[in-house]
Amino acid sequence: MTEELTDLRVAVVGVGMMGADHVRRLQTRTAGARTVVVADAFPATAEKVAAAWPGVRVATDPLAAIADDEVDAVVIATPGNTHEELVSACLERGKPVLCEKPLTTDVESSLRLVEAERATGRRLIQVGFMRRFDPEYAALRSLVESDDLGRPLMMHCAHRNASVPPYFTSEMVVLDSLVHEVDCTRFLLGEEITAITVLHPRSRRDVPDGLSDPTFALLETESGALVDVEVNVATGLGYEVRTELVAERGTAMIGLEGGPVVARGGAGSASRGRSVPPSFKERFKAAYDLEFQAWADAARRGTATGPTAWDGYAATAVTTAGVEALRSGQRTEVRLAARS
Amino acid sequence: MTEELTDLRVAVVGVGMMGADHVRRLQTRTAGARTVVVADAFPATAEKVAAAWPGVRVATDPLAAIADDEVDAVVIATPGNTHEELVSACLERGKPVLCEKPLTTDVESSLRLVEAERATGRRLIQVGFMRRFDPEYAALRSLVESDDLGRPLMMHCAHRNASVPPYFTSEMVVLDSLVHEVDCTRFLLGEEITAITVLHPRSRRDVPDGLSDPTFALLETESGALVDVEVNVATGLGYEVRTELVAERGTAMIGLEGGPVVARGGAGSASRGRSVPPSFKERFKAAYDLEFQAWADAARRGTATGPTAWDGYAATAVTTAGVEALRSGQRTEVRLAARS
Amino acid sequence: MTEELTDLRVAVVGVGMMGADHVRRLQTRTAGARTVVVADAFPATAEKVAAAWPGVRVATDPLAAIADDEVDAVVIATPGNTHEELVSACLERGKPVLCEKPLTTDVESSLRLVEAERATGRRLIQVGFMRRFDPEYAALRSLVESDDLGRPLMMHCAHRNASVPPYFTSEMVVLDSLVHEVDCTRFLLGEEITAITVLHPRSRRDVPDGLSDPTFALLETESGALVDVEVNVATGLGYEVRTELVAERGTAMIGLEGGPVVARGGAGSASRGRSVPPSFKERFKAAYDLEFQAWADAARRGTATGPTAWDGYAATAVTTAGVEALRSGQRTEVRLAARS
Amino acid sequence: MTEELTDLRVAVVGVGMMGADHVRRLQTRTAGARTVVVADAFPATAEKVAAAWPGVRVATDPLAAIADDEVDAVVIATPGNTHEELVSACLERGKPVLCEKPLTTDVESSLRLVEAERATGRRLIQVGFMRRFDPEYAALRSLVESDDLGRPLMMHCAHRNASVPPYFTSEMVVLDSLVHEVDCTRFLLGEEITAITVLHPRSRRDVPDGLSDPTFALLETESGALVDVEVNVATGLGYEVRTELVAERGTAMIGLEGGPVVARGGAGSASRGRSVPPSFKERFKAAYDLEFQAWADAARRGTATGPTAWDGYAATAVTTAGVEALRSGQRTEVRLAARS
Repeated sequence: MTEELTDLRVAVVGVGMMGADHVRRLQTRTAGARTVVVADAFPATAEKVAAAWPGVRVATDPLAAIADDEVDAVVIATPGNTHEELVSACLERGKPVLCEKPLTTDVESSLRLVEAERATGRRLIQVGFMRRFDPEYAALRSLVESDDLGRPLMMHCAHRNASVPPYFTSEMVVLDSLVHEVDCTRFLLGEEITAITVLHPRSRRDVPDGLSDPTFALLETESGALVDVEVNVATGLGYEVRTELVAERGTAMIGLEGGPVVARGGAGSASRGRSVPPSFKERFKAAYDLEFQAWADAARRGTATGPTAWDGYAATAVTTAGVEALRSGQRTEVRLAARS
Repeated sequence: MTEELTDLRVAVVGVGMMGADHVRRLQTRTAGARTVVVADAFPATAEKVAAAWPGVRVATDPLAAIADDEVDAVVIATPGNTHEELVSACLERGKPVLCEKPLTTDVESSLRLVEAERATGRRLIQVGFMRRFDPEYAALRSLVESDDLGRPLMMHCAHRNASVPPYFTSEMVVLDSLVHEVDCTRFLLGEEITAITVLHPRSRRDVPDGLSDPTFALLETESGALVDVEVNVATGLGYEVRTELVAERGTAMIGLEGGPVVARGGAGSASRGRSVPPSFKERFKAAYDLEFQAWADAARRGTATGPTAWDGYAATAVTTAGVEALRSGQRTEVRLAARS
Repeated sequence: MTEELTDLRVAVVGVGMMGADHVRRLQTRTAGARTVVVADAFPATAEKVAAAWPGVRVATDPLAAIADDEVDAVVIATPGNTHEELVSACLERGKPVLCEKPLTTDVESSLRLVEAERATGRRLIQVGFMRRFDPEYAALRSLVESDDLGRPLMMHCAHRNASVPPYFTSEMVVLDSLVHEVDCTRFLLGEEITAITVLHPRSRRDVPDGLSDPTFALLETESGALVDVEVNVATGLGYEVRTELVAERGTAMIGLEGGPVVARGGAGSASRGRSVPPSFKERFKAAYDLEFQAWADAARRGTATGPTAWDGYAATAVTTAGVEALRSGQRTEVRLAARS
Repeated sequence: MTEELTDLRVAVVGVGMMGADHVRRLQTRTAGARTVVVADAFPATAEKVAAAWPGVRVATDPLAAIADDEVDAVVIATPGNTHEELVSACLERGKPVLCEKPLTTDVESSLRLVEAERATGRRLIQVGFMRRFDPEYAALRSLVESDDLGRPLMMHCAHRNASVPPYFTSEMVVLDSLVHEVDCTRFLLGEEITAITVLHPRSRRDVPDGLSDPTFALLETESGALVDVEVNVATGLGYEVRTELVAERGTAMIGLEGGPVVARGGAGSASRGRSVPPSFKERFKAAYDLEFQAWADAARRGTATGPTAWDGYAATAVTTAGVEALRSGQRTEVRLAARS
């Protein structure tokens, strides 16, 4: 039995709704990896998850889970403001880490992680931008890389959620929702975002105070491409994401799909069409599985793949500028550190 | 035999490519109307068109055609800088007129026509925004009017031409292409545009000097709706127009259609899809026919229907502001005259 | 004023729902033609239609309308069992006639009309298979003619109606509904049908006695192509027709289209799709207009275009065999007269 | 460490193209399972596969691999005529087995396996009809089960391959290609097939002797539903499967999908559409992964899931009748053993 066949032993730190789902994913959908330790700020939560999966222990605290000698790699699904400390602990011990987005909640700490990883001499951090593993997004990226349609000039993005919790604000739209379009833009076009403008049309009614919905953003990139983004977080409908690339020799759109095309009657009219998935979980189910498999494969080799710490830093830099743009109503430049 | 059954006798002024096609449309596709006189700045052009259709005479000049006693109504398809004089002549004689867009080339003259028509006490002017007669645009307008999807909040428009003549400039993109999206926005949303921003991403290469392509425009409306527009005039592909409405309770998209869905093989890959029509002529063939029939029906009753002189004026006001926005790179407000 | 510009003076015989709509179409949508006389088995019906349109007179009976000296051409929209007599009267007077389908209700009388027309030495009969004028069907026919996809091998057809009157029987499905797919097969493939099989799956419940719905038919053609047909006449939904050609080098499908793609919420789920038109009237509105314009253009030249008397005969021959196949449950050969 | 966490140790018997891919799938995409032994009729083939994956041994022969004490479960990907012996050996040792389709190549041996499994008192056999794990097919099955569209009445299936090897015959079309539609029909409608008719339209040219392509089949089910099937094995295009259910209260279609919708120019025309996947491997990539994960999950519990031995038997019974129908050109009844 050779070393490569040994399962990756994973600590999952933060086992709320998302983290608990990641435990399930590791145990039942990821080849060559299994959760051995879980930790959570609420011990009862950790106990409950551990009880559901034979062979999973509870660590006293997140840092103990990361330090555990029987842990080879770490998944972090705690709130963003804890990420710097936890990811740093992983780096110190040379353990590959899959950190849910955002990498951290401010530009400076993200950059510190970029530098701390570089100091280890290895790639250890993967940020949880799962869309990069979605077959449709991956196919669009391949199309751009193939240069088949020529240089990208514009991109149109729409991001629609059925609903948000009552405490959701317009800033959270930028930090939690728009951030996905920011990462997709960087991923699909393969370049940095240099400026952002955030505007609001009149809002739908019946949204929480502090929230104006939808949101319009305009992203500019290094090469001069323009990306317009619609973010709608309270449509009442379901979850839809759509991206259309406009390039020199053609266009390409993803996100029109779904399951069966059903024709049925209704109140006074008949229609033929597809169901809209209720949430990102259904839409990106396969992407999450692929993301974890790719991470586990890389972690077993002692490294990481997919979105880098720099990707996490750059996304935070753009959304930070986005919040400033939201407040000022003005085009705001994004200034990234030099990429040494 | 009653008066209503008498055919409308039409003068077509300007019989270049577009005007000649309008003559054909009147003779062969429009019930209750026929061309009796044509005029053109180039007499040989007028002679050639008249020779093709029995019963069509050539007038010595456009004003003579309009004044002709045997002419009941007028179609104007001359360059925009002649429109004020010609439309005014129609108004003076109380003759219904279908004037190709733009109504006139500047705001002041358009407003003078609005006032001159009002002074006649009748509706006589119809502006040639043919898209309003396209079944898809009409269905989207009906959907907005039904309030079925609630209040409009945003709209996404794309307008793509395969190619433009070598003398085409970025200002002409605003005046000749963007103007259609301006009118559609006003038509679909049923309100005025209050501000416009025009930006350029990096341009495709191999376009004429003075042209940057594509163009991005952002329109704001009275109610606070935001409309983003992509105009692409040299895609090398074909003609595509697409509009997606984002409203409080749903979205609606038009422009995805075409003819047969064909699957076939190709160089190394197979695909399944639809042909993109080569130009606006194929895409809006039915719309032009419907526009002319609606105009003829109204003109036989001594009046006009569809896009009004005010619609022509408002479109000119927005595109004039658009050219200013293009030059300044700044958001530019649109100031309309009071609508007395 | 030359002869060509004179409007075609039309008699419309049979002005029930369909015929009355044809009068409207002639008066308001057909260039160069106008109704001058109407006749109907119910004089009150004819009076009502005539009263709605200035300049339209009522004839004492259909034959009087056809014989009228001020009538140049005739539209027949009476029940099928009257067609032979009425079309014959048109042929005797050398008047172009647009006869609604079926040409006649039995093979022998249809063939007599084919021969009677041939004896006049002119093409005078056009049968009302309006689908041939639908832009989608026409585009599919053009594709077949272009040989771009190679030889046709199979075709899949679906024909779905929302509902039928309570007296509708399975035989009427063959005679009134399937007949359209029969004509489309002949039109699209450009060859005769040689055999027909008609089968029934279990029926939907809640249909009238004497009706089994849906119906499956299998058509075989001269060249050996196989065409399977689903006819559904009581779906409760709306009107859908779809045809997919399977050829040597590719496939082509028509009938997926509609208006705006609308996303909206609903009872527990959200969907994105298109409205299904309620009936053939909405689906083939443009086709009817194009059919009438083409007929009027030909009739003004003293002839006819589109579906011929032979097309009407061949369709009747196939549906007659179809009724036999329905009764026997067996594959039934279609035997056509020699085409002299 | 509890028992449940122990990886399932798998023998893969037959490691040609398909079996070797299954080894890769177990090693890199299936949680909780790993290949420990491979065997093949060609020892060099087995050696090559084993060399590629650390920890995989080569067994002297298939029966030795099945008997191996360190093997918990077996995947069989050898030719169909070996399946009875190999599956029987698995049953004798009480080992769960995933057997590629067909279960066996004749009705009698399939039935013997059904009975042999029953004698073990456990469910141990899963047949490799992977489509049942495809998200689209699964969604359509759920829709039928929900009764949302009412009782199924008809189904239309199309199955298109780009090409087949030169030795492919019309009988192999029935046994290797049509068998998938047979299983899908049984799966989607949840009932047995009672009769089959197989017909050929004229064939495309340039196909091997002994092959007529395409093939048309008509399946009848217990409830009286009719299923028409187009099988096209040499389209030169790519791989497409499509199924449309026609039910009492609506219709549902799967198989229209693909990746990005790309618009691009071409030789004289522009089109907008999707790529057709080159083969079943791309189309059913996710389905195979899901099939193996579901099998491994069940096998770790000592049982099986998905398509049963009876499903394998019933499919063989239908395709056996299909070959008879192909030869006779007649409707052929399918007679299944009593399901004790």
